[in-house]
Amino acid sequence: MSKIIVLRLGHRKTRDVRITTHVGLVARAFGADGVIISGERDEKLLSGLRDVCEKWGKKSFEISFVEDWLGFILEARNRGWVIIHLTMYGININYYIKELKKLLHKKKNFLVIVGAEKVPKKVYEIAQYNVAIGNQPHSEVSALAIFLDRLFEGRELIRSYKDAKIQIIPTTNSKKIIIRNNDQK
Amino acid sequence: MSKIIVLRLGHRKTRDVRITTHVGLVARAFGADGVIISGERDEKLLSGLRDVCEKWGKKSFEISFVEDWLGFILEARNRGWVIIHLTMYGININYYIKELKKLLHKKKNFLVIVGAEKVPKKVYEIAQYNVAIGNQPHSEVSALAIFLDRLFEGRELIRSYKDAKIQIIPTTNSKKIIIRNNDQK
Repeated sequence: MSKIIVLRLGHRKTRDVRITTHVGLVARAFGADGVIISGERDEKLLSGLRDVCEKWGKKSFEISFVEDWLGFILEARNRGWVIIHLTMYGININYYIKELKKLLHKKKNFLVIVGAEKVPKKVYEIAQYNVAIGNQPHSEVSALAIFLDRLFEGRELIRSYKDAKIQIIPTTNSKKIIIRNNDQK
Repeated sequence: MSKIIVLRLGHRKTRDVRITTHVGLVARAFGADGVIISGERDEKLLSGLRDVCEKWGKKSFEISFVEDWLGFILEARNRGWVIIHLTMYGININYYIKELKKLLHKKKNFLVIVGAEKVPKKVYEIAQYNVAIGNQPHSEVSALAIFLDRLFEGRELIRSYKDAKIQIIPTTNSKKIIIRNNDQK
């Protein structure tokens, strides 16, 4: 199975805490296998994301911090990972999506980079694919969601997790959940 | 032409400023006609969004604040607007999307509600469609993006705006923009 890891660059502790959390949640919910955060070290953020996996399942989801993001990207590239950078300056997703699906089919691993405010020029150069989810300003949260949704053709949105403690029962006009006691088997 | 307006409920000035901004940017970039914000009045947020339209185009995009969100929703419903609430507790988008596309085709107007932390029960009851972009926690930013992307079948991601002052020239591995001087015609 190919692996898809999201790398969030340039996290700033106070300013970005909610956006980076949403990036992590989108990575988990839309089918990535993990999120690696770089920038200011933020243990509270990481444990918040781990709590979500504890409660909603997918405990296999990798959540960690990396100091040397450049080394991390270069190492991934050297090991044959496909480096994808989501940026409004890139080439439209429609142009690349077929090729990327083929690579996924060939069991290639993907490193998907999303930046905060300003992404170093180096990232544009190292990435094999600078992919634009449109060339208008919006959000790294939406860019990542659309990218993964297109890649998996919406399949991820109907998944449920066996290791979840809490699960939603979809309803037309209220809120229903079930609590599972996975510990007592 | 049918109109699609996004209503952002329960904005909190400090805590939500970036998320609400991203909701507004997604609304603009993915084809909605406006964003109405409710909760704490936040002029700076509104003017920030207006600046984006000034610079990147789509000046017709409506940006405003509403105090009485409940009255606003009820009035829209009374005028025949379709009230859609995006919530992880709802029914999967895949189930509703055909029906919603038909309504769009019939030139129906849509009010698309996205909440902050806790959405009042009333909203679930008033909405004709409580739509889940999956039943996992992620983000109102990604939920709105996926909703609009599915509704417009990706068409909005290749649009450009005639009234833009700045425009991106998509490139494979750098950043290119052109500055247009629309004022001197």
